[in-house]
Amino acid sequence: MSDALKIGIAGLGTVGAGVAKILRDHSEMLTLRAGKPIVITAVSARSRSKDRGVNLAAFEWFDDPVAMAKSDSIDVFVELIGGEDGVAYAATQAAIKAGKHVVTANKAMLAMHGQPLALAAEDAGVNLRFEAAVAGGIPIIKTLTESLAGNKIERVMGVMNGTCNYILTRMESAGLPYEDVFKEADALGYLEADPNLDVGGIDAAHKLVLLSSIAFGTQVDFAGAELEGIGQVTINDIHHARDMGFRIKLLGLAQMTDAGLEQSMRPCLVPNSSPLAQLEGGTNMVVVEGDQVGQIVLRGAGAGEGPTASAVLGDIMDIARGLNIPVFGQPANTLKAAKSAKPNGESAYCLRLNLQDTPGIMAKVSTALADAGISIDRMRQFSHEDTSAPVMIVTHPTKRATIEAAFDVITDMGITTEPPLMLGIVEV
Amino acid sequence: MSDALKIGIAGLGTVGAGVAKILRDHSEMLTLRAGKPIVITAVSARSRSKDRGVNLAAFEWFDDPVAMAKSDSIDVFVELIGGEDGVAYAATQAAIKAGKHVVTANKAMLAMHGQPLALAAEDAGVNLRFEAAVAGGIPIIKTLTESLAGNKIERVMGVMNGTCNYILTRMESAGLPYEDVFKEADALGYLEADPNLDVGGIDAAHKLVLLSSIAFGTQVDFAGAELEGIGQVTINDIHHARDMGFRIKLLGLAQMTDAGLEQSMRPCLVPNSSPLAQLEGGTNMVVVEGDQVGQIVLRGAGAGEGPTASAVLGDIMDIARGLNIPVFGQPANTLKAAKSAKPNGESAYCLRLNLQDTPGIMAKVSTALADAGISIDRMRQFSHEDTSAPVMIVTHPTKRATIEAAFDVITDMGITTEPPLMLGIVEV
Repeated sequence: MSDALKIGIAGLGTVGAGVAKILRDHSEMLTLRAGKPIVITAVSARSRSKDRGVNLAAFEWFDDPVAMAKSDSIDVFVELIGGEDGVAYAATQAAIKAGKHVVTANKAMLAMHGQPLALAAEDAGVNLRFEAAVAGGIPIIKTLTESLAGNKIERVMGVMNGTCNYILTRMESAGLPYEDVFKEADALGYLEADPNLDVGGIDAAHKLVLLSSIAFGTQVDFAGAELEGIGQVTINDIHHARDMGFRIKLLGLAQMTDAGLEQSMRPCLVPNSSPLAQLEGGTNMVVVEGDQVGQIVLRGAGAGEGPTASAVLGDIMDIARGLNIPVFGQPANTLKAAKSAKPNGESAYCLRLNLQDTPGIMAKVSTALADAGISIDRMRQFSHEDTSAPVMIVTHPTKRATIEAAFDVITDMGITTEPPLMLGIVEV
Repeated sequence: MSDALKIGIAGLGTVGAGVAKILRDHSEMLTLRAGKPIVITAVSARSRSKDRGVNLAAFEWFDDPVAMAKSDSIDVFVELIGGEDGVAYAATQAAIKAGKHVVTANKAMLAMHGQPLALAAEDAGVNLRFEAAVAGGIPIIKTLTESLAGNKIERVMGVMNGTCNYILTRMESAGLPYEDVFKEADALGYLEADPNLDVGGIDAAHKLVLLSSIAFGTQVDFAGAELEGIGQVTINDIHHARDMGFRIKLLGLAQMTDAGLEQSMRPCLVPNSSPLAQLEGGTNMVVVEGDQVGQIVLRGAGAGEGPTASAVLGDIMDIARGLNIPVFGQPANTLKAAKSAKPNGESAYCLRLNLQDTPGIMAKVSTALADAGISIDRMRQFSHEDTSAPVMIVTHPTKRATIEAAFDVITDMGITTEPPLMLGIVEV
């Protein structure tokens, strides 16, 4: 039996405590599977006295995670502090510099500093693993980096923020407006300290840009991602979309085109028959399309103690078993700088307009679309009790630049009673 | 740059040719990802002259795959010959003995000889990898063995034979009887040379027992799996099940209970809302439930050149990157002999009876169920034009042994015009 692998955990929230519990409860099984014991030797968190449901007294305590990262007591630094900068980043850098492997769930840090961290880790000959950073317990990082390594990846898509999906599906099932469900989610502790990270799509975009780096061999490029949150989606939109055969999802999409790397995180319509449409609550789903494998769909819990700890453990087990793979699937010094491109693929779009209920308005809209060369596939005006007529227009496939121009024309006409909304229709 | 990894491919059907094409077309990308070139050095097949859409003239040719397996020309033996014994098994043994890594898509061979092969491979310090053997392009072997290594696995389920799923969904969509769709599938080349491997559930069970070995740390035990094919399922069953909110799937289920390892491959009912219900045609789906991760669902193409070659490439890339993990996730000499148990979990069941259309018959059936302590959740008699009344009875959850006993009583009453059918209802 080989020497034990020594783990230091920084950050003892639910996930950190969950990791400690698994290592306590499954010790024998993990030793068999890893070929060596995996033992916690050190921990670090803000409060030493807090009850976390697991006894940590036997482990060396560090008030300062950076000190733990450098300590000879550990082989693997498990970073569960969070935050894109600050102590998480400092400790991760220190761990790599000290020759420790790093396992992290920190999508924000990697989305911002993934490239220098990967370069440093590969220079130091250590692993930097982050399965837990994307889609909780779903093994999407390993799937992309390892299982699908023989594929040229064509498209990566996903619903990767459980809070947004909870809000959208709860609005639908309970018939509640956005504001009410937002408050509910907040009361349930589902929202980040800065809720815009969730509902603004930032957290989900952090995840998407990590996937697209692996998929397309480019340096992580968060700045190049187009972002739109779910705050504009109303309960009526959800019901009307459903009537027309769609559900609304905050959907990430990344693909490499001749123009460059397209990355977007936006509310979209997906057909009711799509596997994405069936996602309820906090469940995540990632869809990968490769030139060989075709379409692979992975679904599971996107957050929570068990699923996230499971992903952290998977990474720890890989390290125990001697795995050594470049952070983003190919050496960081071979990753190309991403040339970001405004998404401009052909797809159908849905325009939601709340039109002034006066004669001639619809003619103006139709003319604006016709002038742009956009033809209408389906259109429905929904019943209404006030002087604002809710209309949904589904177009035939058109370029995004084309529909955006037409959308701006319609918006500027001053014929809508509320800001109009444009949603791409994604066939998955 | 490290030395090239030398690949020998034995068996040049669609998958073997597909692997050769990927290595030809993606050479630069694969070298970057693997950290070394991956080159075919040798090939072996029955016919040297056959046109396979890829030029193999540059590679050393072996008429005898066993000779290739032993040859110094290769580092990795890719076994795509198939068949549980014969030359595939002999060549795999020879390759391991000669210190070559093996990548295989051969589920039958592993289901029968997985344990001695794993022992031999681990003794020789070589990898024996088989992602392509189970569910085509779906990365279920890596997910179970590596990503979920921190979990105690509770249940593994799956639709893993695309041909059966094609037949069942085609019967439904085209309204054709089993016999007609069977002939269609045969004409399309979907069926194995011995069709019973497909429609008898044997091929799918081969896959299931490989998954349960990894999931539960037991030696592969095909003999312990309960098997039932789809030949008894009629077009009426499919339509009637649909009317009652279910679809019929050939579903594998493995779980460890106090009584032992339960493994079954049988036609089952799944609720329309289940992700399994939406599977059409040749698509496969595997569902894994772990104590930490909860439920993970993986979906993708279960067969075909690209998806299967993608899985083979994933294994080759792992070997190129130096991965070394026990064949079934823990050392083969620590795998316990499986103590197989007859599946006897509680679940709801559906009985399909074609009853003689005479007074008192239903009373007899109801009495038989009541005598066994089984209560009826729902029952429907469907309209019929002859003297045989098709009835579907959905029970409340009951033990399998209980319903089987009652089923036997009903069968022996001589009141049915066709052999009755019992289908478990699986909530996924």
